[in-house]
Order: sequence, then structure tokens, then C-alpha cells
Amino acid sequence: MKPFMDENFLLNNDAAKALYHHYAAAMPINDYHCHVVVREIYEDRRYDNLTQVWLSGDHYKWRAMRLDGVDERLITGDAPDEEKFMAYARTVANAVGNPLYHWTHLELQRYFAIEEPLNEVTAPAIWERANRVLRDGLTTRQMILRSNVRTLCSTDDPADDLCYHKLLREEGTFPVNVLPSFRPDQALDVRNPGFSAYLERLGQAAVAEVSDLATLKEVLAKRLAFFDEMGCRVSDHAFSYVPYAEADEAAVDGILRRALRGEALTLLEEEQYKTHMLQYLAALYHQYGMVMQLHIGPMRRVNAAMTRRLGADTGFDSIGDCCIAEPLGRFLNSVNERGMPKTILYCLNPKDNYVLGTMLGNFADGGLAGKMQFGSAWWFNDHRDGMVQQMTTLANLGMLSRFVGMLTDSRSFTSYPRFEYFRRILCNILGTWMEEGEIAPDMERLGRMVQDICYGNIERLMAR
Amino acid sequence: MKPFMDENFLLNNDAAKALYHHYAAAMPINDYHCHVVVREIYEDRRYDNLTQVWLSGDHYKWRAMRLDGVDERLITGDAPDEEKFMAYARTVANAVGNPLYHWTHLELQRYFAIEEPLNEVTAPAIWERANRVLRDGLTTRQMILRSNVRTLCSTDDPADDLCYHKLLREEGTFPVNVLPSFRPDQALDVRNPGFSAYLERLGQAAVAEVSDLATLKEVLAKRLAFFDEMGCRVSDHAFSYVPYAEADEAAVDGILRRALRGEALTLLEEEQYKTHMLQYLAALYHQYGMVMQLHIGPMRRVNAAMTRRLGADTGFDSIGDCCIAEPLGRFLNSVNERGMPKTILYCLNPKDNYVLGTMLGNFADGGLAGKMQFGSAWWFNDHRDGMVQQMTTLANLGMLSRFVGMLTDSRSFTSYPRFEYFRRILCNILGTWMEEGEIAPDMERLGRMVQDICYGNIERLMAR
Amino acid sequence: MKPFMDENFLLNNDAAKALYHHYAAAMPINDYHCHVVVREIYEDRRYDNLTQVWLSGDHYKWRAMRLDGVDERLITGDAPDEEKFMAYARTVANAVGNPLYHWTHLELQRYFAIEEPLNEVTAPAIWERANRVLRDGLTTRQMILRSNVRTLCSTDDPADDLCYHKLLREEGTFPVNVLPSFRPDQALDVRNPGFSAYLERLGQAAVAEVSDLATLKEVLAKRLAFFDEMGCRVSDHAFSYVPYAEADEAAVDGILRRALRGEALTLLEEEQYKTHMLQYLAALYHQYGMVMQLHIGPMRRVNAAMTRRLGADTGFDSIGDCCIAEPLGRFLNSVNERGMPKTILYCLNPKDNYVLGTMLGNFADGGLAGKMQFGSAWWFNDHRDGMVQQMTTLANLGMLSRFVGMLTDSRSFTSYPRFEYFRRILCNILGTWMEEGEIAPDMERLGRMVQDICYGNIERLMAR
Repeated sequence: MKPFMDENFLLNNDAAKALYHHYAAAMPINDYHCHVVVREIYEDRRYDNLTQVWLSGDHYKWRAMRLDGVDERLITGDAPDEEKFMAYARTVANAVGNPLYHWTHLELQRYFAIEEPLNEVTAPAIWERANRVLRDGLTTRQMILRSNVRTLCSTDDPADDLCYHKLLREEGTFPVNVLPSFRPDQALDVRNPGFSAYLERLGQAAVAEVSDLATLKEVLAKRLAFFDEMGCRVSDHAFSYVPYAEADEAAVDGILRRALRGEALTLLEEEQYKTHMLQYLAALYHQYGMVMQLHIGPMRRVNAAMTRRLGADTGFDSIGDCCIAEPLGRFLNSVNERGMPKTILYCLNPKDNYVLGTMLGNFADGGLAGKMQFGSAWWFNDHRDGMVQQMTTLANLGMLSRFVGMLTDSRSFTSYPRFEYFRRILCNILGTWMEEGEIAPDMERLGRMVQDICYGNIERLMAR
Repeated sequence: MKPFMDENFLLNNDAAKALYHHYAAAMPINDYHCHVVVREIYEDRRYDNLTQVWLSGDHYKWRAMRLDGVDERLITGDAPDEEKFMAYARTVANAVGNPLYHWTHLELQRYFAIEEPLNEVTAPAIWERANRVLRDGLTTRQMILRSNVRTLCSTDDPADDLCYHKLLREEGTFPVNVLPSFRPDQALDVRNPGFSAYLERLGQAAVAEVSDLATLKEVLAKRLAFFDEMGCRVSDHAFSYVPYAEADEAAVDGILRRALRGEALTLLEEEQYKTHMLQYLAALYHQYGMVMQLHIGPMRRVNAAMTRRLGADTGFDSIGDCCIAEPLGRFLNSVNERGMPKTILYCLNPKDNYVLGTMLGNFADGGLAGKMQFGSAWWFNDHRDGMVQQMTTLANLGMLSRFVGMLTDSRSFTSYPRFEYFRRILCNILGTWMEEGEIAPDMERLGRMVQDICYGNIERLMAR
Repeated sequence: MKPFMDENFLLNNDAAKALYHHYAAAMPINDYHCHVVVREIYEDRRYDNLTQVWLSGDHYKWRAMRLDGVDERLITGDAPDEEKFMAYARTVANAVGNPLYHWTHLELQRYFAIEEPLNEVTAPAIWERANRVLRDGLTTRQMILRSNVRTLCSTDDPADDLCYHKLLREEGTFPVNVLPSFRPDQALDVRNPGFSAYLERLGQAAVAEVSDLATLKEVLAKRLAFFDEMGCRVSDHAFSYVPYAEADEAAVDGILRRALRGEALTLLEEEQYKTHMLQYLAALYHQYGMVMQLHIGPMRRVNAAMTRRLGADTGFDSIGDCCIAEPLGRFLNSVNERGMPKTILYCLNPKDNYVLGTMLGNFADGGLAGKMQFGSAWWFNDHRDGMVQQMTTLANLGMLSRFVGMLTDSRSFTSYPRFEYFRRILCNILGTWMEEGEIAPDMERLGRMVQDICYGNIERLMAR
């Protein structure tokens, strides 16, 4: 029996071990898609205990606890931090097979040098030891530095003033690139009740007023220019379905004006508006050499009662199953007619893996290798099976060697071991192929490929 | 080479063997979803030969024989039982990779102590030996008792008088809980030509007349109360697609009245009626603490010619591919607003595994661990690959440890070795994780988890 | 470490090796679905270099090169052949995990006795050696003969005069059955701008004029009779979605007449026309004992700009995700009412594997075993994972032993090692089951099954 999660965790043969330990392990991290609060980096937040680190905002853990029958008081309620931790410890011990089980133990090992499995028996001692480490100076910046992070891209609204990005840059002492990402979901969400209020706020950020399509485009262009100055290299758009409906400029202008007046719009009008705006933004991204990310497929706030009680992003989202191939193909084609930006396509429902994995090939062109990307297994898929499925699908359908690899998509500063998790899984896939005589036994070439997937490819994709 | 289907069948390492032999094997069975005829239990049916046991009603076997080119005369026709058995033996020998191959051999081993593979050469001797065992007293009750079944839930129409359940209970000697399940599909199938005739029959069962929505609800409530008295703990609903369309009480009453008058309804009206009735029933299930099962996805009676000839449930059904996430999410949310019963969601198309596996988490709440269940791989999925896929998906997305596990969904009294099949597969998954150092080497904890999945969890879910 | 792609490539245990080497390897090939140019067989085309063999028409390779960032000049442009080969060599070395990687090396081994991995270092020497072999007489016919091909079915339009098939037959010296397939896609594509021009050409081929539905049917029947005389045993239809809409003869006649006059049709009219014509043709196929192939699911020419530049079939197609179960079930049922021909159903999106795998069983009938087939993993799925998924799905849901197995779907005369690839994968699946004690250790029976899947089953299916 292999020891529990030791140095060769997930590495099942010699080639896999060699690839991981000699090539992958030491590579720096570029977490090009995450949701950390940059203020906490600037202020170098300190933590009193593990519950603050783990349970204050992580709806993955909350979901698992609810499925395990834990009372909401011990999850998002007013129970003391220690009680919440004990509840989580019990759930983790029951969560065999869930990525939280591995992530939790990797985080205990890497940040706290704790090797025992977490459960209701070991929890009290682990609580004490880990909290001591936190109080001894495991701050936000220490977590990032110890994880060998070289670049991280937060997720930011175009209306955001990016003041903590600025302050960090002005301070000039933190040796990690903390870059903003441009995520204009609110500017596209034309049927949202808060839409016109949002556009007012967006206008203010650009010292302008949004009164029609032309001024909205100007404002977005100004904000993107500002983000670009601040080092932004990636944008992001989230869609529950893929909108595609063409309409001319005048029609879209009419839709926007009616939205600004608070009038009701149809689903078709929403699609026309979104299509037009996304085409406009895609052309800008292309012009700036920025990467366009499209995240497709979540179904959000399914439980209305709990959303009323706790708000959005509290663990009541799941996976949708819309048909996406046709609208996505037609949308990307419309973008391509004007110039295709570097693009990463993510699906949430693994049934779409083959659709995305083949969609790339339609728009790859000479120039940058890996310009079109099938994004990493994400959210409900960021476990071993999901990663193996995403990477082998990508390999079967295209060029795994050009893949930009892992991201955390996380709010937590202790989530970087997910890169280690991903790298072990990657090395095990490739090492197994080599051991089985399925690929040439050229360790150096394969090692370079691993390093590219771990770090080099995303650096090249994000380069100006 | 491992011996053919020996004691370590499907168990590929020491941890898997230990889990199965020390923890899983001796657990009793709760077959909480099956289609046996309770009269055959009460009357303790005797069998003359294997064809009566295996081929008189099992459309799984019929399909395989048709795919193998067997003439219908030897399947559902008037060929002598022995000829039919010989035809099935030839097909089984060709059915390598199909679960029938394993089930057939497990049944020969467990009920008849026959270890040789079945094929055209061994068939005559096996026919003799097995028939001798049957004639020597392997009756329905013996089959159930020898399989260590403690509870079984038949599938019953609300109009059913459950007389054999009553007789069995009155007799009081059979040490197995034989409980009814409440399956009101006919009461929901409002566009079925036989609908109004059915409601008449249903009304008679409740000594009432169904003339409108209010009386229908009363009648269903009365029947559910009766089922509850008779020990019913689970209900079941089957859907080819997921209906969700809200309509107010008056509108639904109008739809029902028109259906009672034999008027044609639209698909939307069907959806409105079904949504309303299912919401009503879900609230009742919640009130009684009953488990609500939703089976989603079959496409039935696809071959009209054979259905005309042989009737329904004769092997001409297959898997549909409707989009289910949005209507299911909205429907469950509407139920949740009134109080969510304990629920098991089953999909037939494995493309829906991730949709169901994440849907649960939207409605889990403090209280009963595992209240929301992703149901076992079912019908066309109850083979090793399907079970592995269902259980690893459940593990990746939620809490495998809270899973209620296997059911037979069968008409046959020799189908209980499917529990053994499931348990071996479960133990092999968990054992492999332990051997690979992916979970803590705590055999006792894992053994308890296995026992819960085999039996404990379903007992707790069904408890009042 | 296993040697790179040696004689036991993909064979991971003794039973797998025995099955492959003793049973599968020597079986002849029936490539019942390919796209070779028969003129090149008749003229016994000679090649100057590997670029002519590999890169002149293979859009699989073009896609991979584009994804790898290769300039179009080196793909379909005017770069010298040697430069193109060097570019492809660099891409192959990066294409670890893509079936092109294995196919390329298998082709180097089998046709050129070159065992080294292809990459930028080895490319110049391989270029010289392989070109010498080509110039020394590795012609089209030699490639076919050395591959042990006994039958191949090209893909032909009903309007085609099949002159090279005739010439080959008249010549009478080439010991391989080169048969036409009947692929009337253009006769069904009623909304295509070239439709009426095509029908004129089709009419000419039958020395008749197509002026209405009756004459079109006559012409198609005449052409099918001619194809039948020329040895045709299989037809083929490609669909991006599954059309099913009933309309009476008069309505369809009206639709056709309007199409002939160049009038615009609705999607519904297209579906009605296609449904009717396919029903008509299916009845003819049944009458001739021909196999009907339905290929479902591609999304073609997604990149309009590149299609304008390079034309169709240049590597800009991908996988669609329509719902297919209901229209396919209803269409097949309508065919079945008139008599079901031998049928092979292929899906491009693996999410449809379970739909097709269960659809078969609805229409299997006594008579020919394996009359209804779930077609081989195809196009974007013809890699190891795709084949394993298709074969295990087929095994789980039906009868793997009756499977007609592999085809190349290729334009290339060096693509026959894909049969070897398939056979190794098949033998490894079955061998592993035997090694694990999951199937009876009857090597002879299993060997016969392998030989049937490799060759016998397709011969029986195609027999008159």
C-alpha cells in the first residue's frame, strides 16, 4: 500500500515521478484566473484561525457540509469558528473521493506541515497547530510567496478603480505580478434589474455619461485602455447559455436605450445586445493582444429561498445542459471575420468537452501556437477525473503540448496546491504513456512539454 | 490469470478484498425499488425450470437475444422452454462485456452452485442441474431469504388494493418487510387515452368520485394515507422529459375537467397539469417523510410494430436525450419553496450525470445527511462502467459516503446478486484509492462507509 | 519501460497479446467506408515523396498543424514539399496523445520500415529513406496489397458513372474488391443552392429528366440498380441533425417542384423532403439487401473565411450537439413499418453513444445477428479513448461480438494501419477482461469473436 498522500501522490510509475519531480515541481505559478480580493494582498491580511482561511467564503466547502447534513448555523451562521472547523473536519473525513478531501490535506501539508488525515479525532490538535502557524506570520503575502506564484490575475469589473492594484504597484516591494482581469458581465447583462444603475456607475468610472450605444462603447474602450495600462492581459465573460443573434447597430442602440429607460426586453433582444457587445469587445481584445475567456454553462441561484437568505455565490449553483455548438460556432465565426483574439473556451458540463475540443481547430491559424485554447477543467470538474477527461480530450482532438494548464478560480490564498494537484495528474498521464511505450522515450522533450503546460504556454499566451 | 468469477471477482487489490469480504458481503439487502409481483411471494411460487425463472418476463434478456439474431419464437413465442433456454445459453456465451453475462453466471453460482460458464456446450447439463434445484424447493421465498433480503419495496399503483401485501402481513411468518411503493404515473399521464377510465378506477379505490381537481387531490391523499398505513416509505415517478410549467389552481382544474371529458390537451397543458400535481404530491411526501424518486429519461415503445404485437415493456425502449437541467432546477425550486421531501434523482442518459450530481447540492440542507440523492446507475447503466461512472461522479461532486446505493429495478427473484455486483465494484473503487495512497489507510472508517452505502444509508433515508 | 510502439504496442497482458498475434493480426481488411479516389487505384499512382502521400489532402493533419501555430503556406500553401514535411514533423513531435502521433509512426513502421520517432531532428533522414521506398515502387496498389485489404468501398455520388470501378473490373487483375457506395447526400440537400443543377446532372446519369417526385424516385432507383450491378453493398447518408417530419406524397412533390424552380424552402419543408426521400431509399436498400449507414452530428464549414479561401473539407468542421434521440427513434420506426434494412448508426458526439447504443435494440429482429449496428468510433473519435468508449458502450448495451468493427473513413492509401490500431485496442479490452477473470478463459471462443469483429461480421452484413 502506498503511503497516504506522500511525495509520489498520484504518480504511479517511474516516468511520472521523474516528470513531476525533475520538471514540473519547481515551475512557478501563473494563476491567470482567480477571485482573490487584492486588498487582502495589499494589506497583507493576517488570520487568527483556519476557519477564517478556509470557511469564510468557500462555497465548495459549504455545499459539501450541507450534503453531509451539517446545520447552516455551522456553515454560514453564527457558530464560533472552532465549532465550524470541527464540523468541517467531520465532513472532510466523509468526503472520500471529493477533491476537497485532497485539497484540504495538500493545504495542511504544504502550509502547515501537518501530515495526518483530518477527521473528528485529529481535528482539535490540528486546529491548535495550524492556528499557531497562522498567528506566527502565515499572512496572505506569505501564502502567495511560499507557493512560488509569479503572476496572478484577479477578476475585476470595468467600473472598478483598481486602487489596490495601483497601491501594490506603487509600493513596489511585492515580487509578484498582481494583474487585473476585465470582466464586463454586468455591462452585458441587459435584462438585469440593476443594469441602468450599473451603467451609471460605469460611466462615472470613465468620467462620462452612458446614454446610448456609442457612449457605452466609448466608456468600455476607455476602461479597457485603463485596465491595459494597469497590466491587464485577460478578459472574462460568463454565460449560462451561448447567445448569438445578429442585429444592426441601430437596432442594438434601440435595445440599449430602452434598457436604460427601464423597459422590459425579450430574450431575443438580450441575445442581440450581448452578441453585438461581445463582438465589439472581442475586436478590442484582439487589438490589445488580450486573451478572451468564455466560461459557458453554469445555472446560477437555483435555490431561490437560500439565495434570498444568503445572496449569490453561496453554493446554490449547478451545471446546465444547453446545446451550445451551433450558436458558439456562429458567434466565433462572426468574431473571426473581424479578427480572432487569443481565446480560451471553458465548458462546465463535461458533455461539451468534445464540442469545445473540436471548436478550437476551426479558428486556429498560423502564428501563435495554442492561440485557441480549450480551458482547464473548472469548478465542478477540477478533480482528478475531470482533469484527466479534459486533458485526454484535448490531447485526442488537438495539441495537449500547447495547453495553458491550470488556474485556481478561487477566492482563497491557500488554493495554490491545486496547481500541484494538476501537475501530478498531468505528469501521471504523460509518464504512463511513456512507460507503456506509447510515446517516444525522450524524457527531455516530454519534460519541456510539461514545463510549457505548467507555465511557459500561459506566459506566451499572455505576452503582448 | 485470475480464475473466472471466483470469490475475488472484480476485487483487484488487498484493500478491495478486505472491504468486500469483511464489511460488505454480510450486509443485508434493502431493495427499495423493484418490480416483483407480490402475489408470487405470498403464494411462494415454485418453478419447473430456468426458463420460467429467467426468460418469462425479462426484457433485458429478450433484447440481447434479438441483437444476437434469435428468432422471436424462441424469445417470447411458443417454443418449448428447453429450446428457449438453449437459445439464451448461446446468446450469453456471445454477450461478453454485457452485464447479463456476469449476472447470469452470478445467479448460477449463488442459487444453483454451478460454476461453469454457460454456453451451447454446457447448457444441457446446466438445464438439468438447475431445474433439479428449482424442483427441490428453490421457491420465491427461498430465493429472497437466501439472498439476505431484509426489506423490499414493490412498485404499486395508487388504485391497487395491496391485498397480497395485506395477506403477507396478516400471515406474519415471512421475515422480510415487503412494502408497497406509491407510483401514480397513471394519475399524471393526462393525455393518455385511458386517463379518465383510470381516474374512475382510482376513485373506486378511495370510495369516491373524481370529478375535478379538488376531488382528485382528496382521492390521492386518501390512497397515500392507505399506502402509508401499509408501510409505504417511497414513491416513484417516471418521466421521459422533465415537465415544468406553472399554472394556477383554476387553470389546472380546467385542464383536468377537459381531460375527464375526453377533450384533447396540448403539451403545455400536460406540463402544467403534471407540474401542479407533482408539487401537490411532493408536499404530501414531505409531510409523510416519504422518499420521492424521480426517474428521468427513457424513450418508450420506440418500435410501434413490436409494441402492437407484444405490448409495453417488452424490450423496445431506449435512452432519450432531452435537456433537463433548467426545468428540473425550476421544478425542484418550486417544491423547495413548500418544503423539500427526501429525494432521489435518477437519469437514464449518463450525459446527465453531472447535471444531477450537482443539482443535489442546490437543495441539501442541515438535518438528514444524504437527504438529496443521486440515484444508482439504472436500467441501461447497471453494468460496471455505468456504476463506476455514477459513483465516481457522485464522489467528485458530493458525498459518496451518504449514497443509498443499489436497487434491482427487477421483476426477477434471482436478481439480488446485482447487489453483490454493486458491492464488489464499490469496494474496488474505495480499495484502489486506499492502495494508491489517495485516502487515509483507516480500514475501519472506510468499512463503516461501505456498510452505510450497502445498507445503513437507505435504512436511515426510509426511516419515519 | 515498454519499448516504443513495438510488436506489443497497446497490448498490456498475455491474453491480449495472444488474441492479437494469433487471431487478429492476420485477418484481411474490409474497409467498408472510405474516401479514396478509385482513379488512383486504377492508374496505380506513384508518389515522389511523403508530402504527396500524407499532406496533399489530409485535413486531420492540417488542423493539427494549425493548432501548433504552423503558417498556412506550409500547410495548404505553395511551400516546397520538403518544407511542408519538416513542418509536419515538428508538429507530430508535439502531438503526443493525438491519434496522428500513433498513426504516423505506425505508417512509418509498416510501409517504410522506419522505427525511429519522427521529430525535427530525425525528419531529414526519414524524408530521404521514405521517399526512396516510394520511388522504388510503393504505389497505390502496393499499399493496398501489402495491407492485406480484400474489399474496399469508395464513396460515390449516384450521378457518378463509376468508370474507374468499371475499368478496374474489366482489367480483372487487381485481387481486391473495389466497390462503390451509394451516397445520395446531394439529392437530399434540397435547400442547397446547387440542388436543381445537381438533379439535372443526376437525371443525365440515368438518361431521364427529373421534373417531379415520381421522376426523381425513378432516377434514384435506376442509379441504385446500376450501383447494385457494380457490386455496391452499402449506402451512406450524412446529417448534421436528424430530420424527421412526415408529409404526404403530394406535399413532398410540391416541395420538390418549388426547389426545382429555385424557390426558397423552410427548414420544416427540408425535413419533410428529407424524411420522405430517406424512407423511400431505405425501402430500396432493404429490397437490395444493402446496408444503410447514417452518419450523424458534424457541424461543417464553421469558419467561413477559411472556407471561402480553401473550399469545403479543409479542416474547419467540428462536432455538433443537437438532441437526436426522438427524431431518430421516430424516423427509424417509420422505416421499420415498411421493413428495416441492415443499418449502421454513427454519432460524432460521444454524448450520443448511449442513445445509439440503445436505439439498436429497438429494431433488432430474428434473422441476421448484428443486423442493427452501432458504428465504429469515427472522425474526431478514432483514437484509443474513443474506440474504447464506443466498444465498451456497445458491449455494455448490446452484443460486442456482433460488431462490424473498423473502417478508415480516409482519403489516404496508407491509412490501413488504423485497422491494426483498432484490433490492438479490441484485443486489449478482451484480453484484460480474461486476465481479470471477468470472462471465461476460453481463448478459442474469444479468438473467433475477435476474428468476427475484425472481418467476419462485416462480410456477413454485406452479403447479399
